[in-house]
Amino acid sequence: MKSYIEMSPDELNNELKTLREEYHHFQEMELQLDMSRGKPCREQLDLSMGMMDVLYSDADLSSEDGTDVRNYGILTGIYEAKRLIGAMMENNPDNIIIYGNSSLNVMYDTVARAFTHGIMGNTPWCRLKKVKFLCPSPGYDRHFAITEYFGIEMIPVPMSPTGPDMDMVEKLVSEDEAVKGIWCVPKYSNPQGYSYSDETVKRFARLHPKARDFRIFWDNAYGIHHLYDDDQDVLIEILEECKHAGNPDMVYKFSSTSKITFPGSGIAALATSPNNLEDIMQQLKNQTIGHDKVNQLRHVRFFKNIEGMREHMRKHADIIRPKFEMLEETFETELGGLGIGDWTKPKGGYFISFETLPGCAKAVVDKVKKGGVVMTGAGSTWPYKKDPNDSNIRIAPTYPPLEDLKVAAKLFTLCVKIVSIEKILEEKA
Amino acid sequence: MKSYIEMSPDELNNELKTLREEYHHFQEMELQLDMSRGKPCREQLDLSMGMMDVLYSDADLSSEDGTDVRNYGILTGIYEAKRLIGAMMENNPDNIIIYGNSSLNVMYDTVARAFTHGIMGNTPWCRLKKVKFLCPSPGYDRHFAITEYFGIEMIPVPMSPTGPDMDMVEKLVSEDEAVKGIWCVPKYSNPQGYSYSDETVKRFARLHPKARDFRIFWDNAYGIHHLYDDDQDVLIEILEECKHAGNPDMVYKFSSTSKITFPGSGIAALATSPNNLEDIMQQLKNQTIGHDKVNQLRHVRFFKNIEGMREHMRKHADIIRPKFEMLEETFETELGGLGIGDWTKPKGGYFISFETLPGCAKAVVDKVKKGGVVMTGAGSTWPYKKDPNDSNIRIAPTYPPLEDLKVAAKLFTLCVKIVSIEKILEEKA
Repeated sequence: MKSYIEMSPDELNNELKTLREEYHHFQEMELQLDMSRGKPCREQLDLSMGMMDVLYSDADLSSEDGTDVRNYGILTGIYEAKRLIGAMMENNPDNIIIYGNSSLNVMYDTVARAFTHGIMGNTPWCRLKKVKFLCPSPGYDRHFAITEYFGIEMIPVPMSPTGPDMDMVEKLVSEDEAVKGIWCVPKYSNPQGYSYSDETVKRFARLHPKARDFRIFWDNAYGIHHLYDDDQDVLIEILEECKHAGNPDMVYKFSSTSKITFPGSGIAALATSPNNLEDIMQQLKNQTIGHDKVNQLRHVRFFKNIEGMREHMRKHADIIRPKFEMLEETFETELGGLGIGDWTKPKGGYFISFETLPGCAKAVVDKVKKGGVVMTGAGSTWPYKKDPNDSNIRIAPTYPPLEDLKVAAKLFTLCVKIVSIEKILEEKA
Repeated sequence: MKSYIEMSPDELNNELKTLREEYHHFQEMELQLDMSRGKPCREQLDLSMGMMDVLYSDADLSSEDGTDVRNYGILTGIYEAKRLIGAMMENNPDNIIIYGNSSLNVMYDTVARAFTHGIMGNTPWCRLKKVKFLCPSPGYDRHFAITEYFGIEMIPVPMSPTGPDMDMVEKLVSEDEAVKGIWCVPKYSNPQGYSYSDETVKRFARLHPKARDFRIFWDNAYGIHHLYDDDQDVLIEILEECKHAGNPDMVYKFSSTSKITFPGSGIAALATSPNNLEDIMQQLKNQTIGHDKVNQLRHVRFFKNIEGMREHMRKHADIIRPKFEMLEETFETELGGLGIGDWTKPKGGYFISFETLPGCAKAVVDKVKKGGVVMTGAGSTWPYKKDPNDSNIRIAPTYPPLEDLKVAAKLFTLCVKIVSIEKILEEKA
C-alpha cells in the first residue's frame, strides 16, 4: 500500500472520507470494550482454580519445618515459599523476603522507607532538598505515580530494544548525588516488551553512583511470562552480576505471582543483598507480625516447584498468544507500509507498545474511546503523564475475549489512519 | 494467709528457704513453655478450618455485585466484606476500608502517611521539629514500637479500670500542638483487659486538640472477643460519638480478624470519617491496586454474617475461658492476702496484667525464664520499654495447653513470692 506520507491532499481526503464512514459504522455498534489495563482474562484465572482445593479442612497446615502456618510469626515468609519464589526470580531463597499480595505495595514501601528512614544509614530522603529518579520511558505508570507522590523529580531516559540509554544513565548516576534510583522493568518491559541486553545489565551492575544510597528498582514483573516455548528472552541475573561487579547492595529486585495465579491474591517478594535485608528488617519488624503464610503454603502446594509454575505459564501463554499475534497481524495488514505507526512485537509480558506519528496519540485514544473501546490513557507511559511527542500508546491485549479484541483492533487501526491523515493534512495546509 | 509485708525477717527467711527448694524442683523439670505473646492455641485455630472449604475449584468467585474477585481492582474491598466487618466494628460499611492481613500494618501505614504527607493538608510530621503521642500505659508494645521507630516522643498516661487518665489527656491534647495522637485499645485493653467507661469515651469525643491533625488511634482489637456470654463490656461507639460532638475527623479506628480466624491470614480494616477516607485514598491508590479479595470473600462465605462471627467467638471463649479462670484462681490461692501483687480479671481480650511490688517485675520474669517459661519481657508494656515502677507483667494465657499453663502459673506465683521476699528483706536491711 502507498504510504500516507507520499499521498497528495486529494488522495488523503478521499481516503479520509471512506475511513470516516467506516468509523461511523463502529459508532453504531455501540461497543463497550475495555483494554486499558494489563489484566488476565477469565480463562487465565480459571487456570488457577485448583489452588482453591489444595488446602482444605482436613489438610495439615504445617510448613516443612513444622511451623503451624495458621498462627502468627515467620516475618520473612516460610522457607518453601522462598525456595519456590527464589527459583522463579533466579535468586537464593536466603536473599528473599516474601511479602503480601502486591509487589507494587513493596515498591511503595521501599521508597517510603528510604524517604522516612534512609537507606543503610544514609540521610532520609525527606530531609534532602531534592531527590531524583531516572525513568526509562515509555514505562509503567504506577511506578511513576509512586515517585510523583513522594515529590521525587522524575527524569525520562529513552528506551531502546536493548534497554534504557545507558550512556545517559551512567552520566546522570555518576554525576548527580540527587539521583537516588531508577525504575526498571528489565524483561518484557511495560509497555514495549523489550528485554535488557547482556551489555545493558552488565553496565547497570557496573554503575558508579555518586549517591551511596542509589538503588536500582528492578521490577521483574514478567520474569517467566513468555509467549513462546522456543523463543524466550534470557537476562543476566542482576543481583549476582552486581555482586561480581563489587556493587552487591545496589539493587532491590521485585516480583510477584499476580499474573501467575490471581491478581490481588498472589504473593509478592523482594530479593536483595544481606545488607539491604538487614536494613529492611529494622522497619519490617515494626510494620507487621508477618504476611499471609496460609496463602504462601497454598501457592507452594499448588505448584510444588518451579517446573509446576513453568508448566502453568505455558497454559497462560496458550490463551494470550493468539491475542498478541492477531493484533500484530491486524496492525501489519491495516497499517503496514502506510508510514503512520510502529509497534513492538514482544515475546512475553503483557503489552504491545504503539508509536503514532508525533502529536497523534491523544487524538487516537480519544477517537477509539468515542468508538466504544477504552485504552490506557495516552501519555500515561511517561512521567507526569507527559509524553513529549504525544506518540506512545500502550496496548493491553490480555483481558478482552479474542473476538472482541478483533473488533477493537480494527477500530484502533481505523482511528490511527483517520487521525494520521488529519495530522498530515493539517501540516500540509 | 499472713501478708509478707507483716512478717518478721526470720519468718520471711524461713518461707524463702521452702520456696527456693520448690523452685529447684521446677528447674529439675526442664520446662520449655512459651506464654510470651497473645497467640491463639491450636484448638482455636482448628475452629476456622472450615474456612478452607468454602472456596473450591468449582465455586463461583464473584462478589455480590458480580465482580470477579480473582482479578485486579476494588481498592477498598468488596462490599459484603465491608458489611461484615462493619457489623463487627459497629460502623457503617461506607466508612470502612478493607486492607490486607494485618491491622498493625494499617496503623504503621497511617503513622507513615502522616509522617510523609501530613493529614488532610496539614504539615507532614517529618517537617516538624517535634511530634508527640500520648501512650496510655501499660499498653501494647507494638504500638509503642511504631511511634518509637518514627522518632515520635511518647508520653505515658496512667491507665485506670475506666481508661486513661482523661484529665491528663485533655490537658496535654488541648495545650500542646506537638501532641498529634494517642494510642488506645479501648475494649479489653492490652494488657489489663480494661474497657473504657462511657464517660471516658465521651470525653475522648469532646477533646479540643490544639493540633488540627490530632488523631485518636483507636485499636479495636478485641471488639467481640468476650470471655462470657452473659457478662460483656459494652462501649459507646467512638466514630458516631465524635460526629455528635462535632469532631467527626478525630478518629482512626482499626480492627482485624487476626484473633477470629487465622492470625496472619485474616483481614484488617480501618473505619473513619469521609474526609479522612478521601485523604487516605490519595495515598492508597498509589500504594496498591487492591488487597486480597479472595480472602475477603472467603471470610464472608465462612461467617455469612455477624451472627456467624459471634457464634464462632463463643467457641473461642469456651477454649480460652478456662485458662483465664485457672490463672485467676491460682493467683488467688497462691498470692491472695500476701500483699505482694495485684492482677486484673478481664471479661475479654487476650491478657491478664499483673502488678508486682515496685522493682520486682524484671526479676520475676527473669526467674520464671530460668525456670523454663518465657513470658513477655518486663517493661515492654511501657513506652521505650521503661516501666517506671518495674512492676508490670503481661500474662498471655491463650497459647499454652491448660495443663502446661497450670505448671507455668505455679512457677510464676512461686517466683513472685521469692522475688518479693528478697525485695522486702533487702529493704528491711
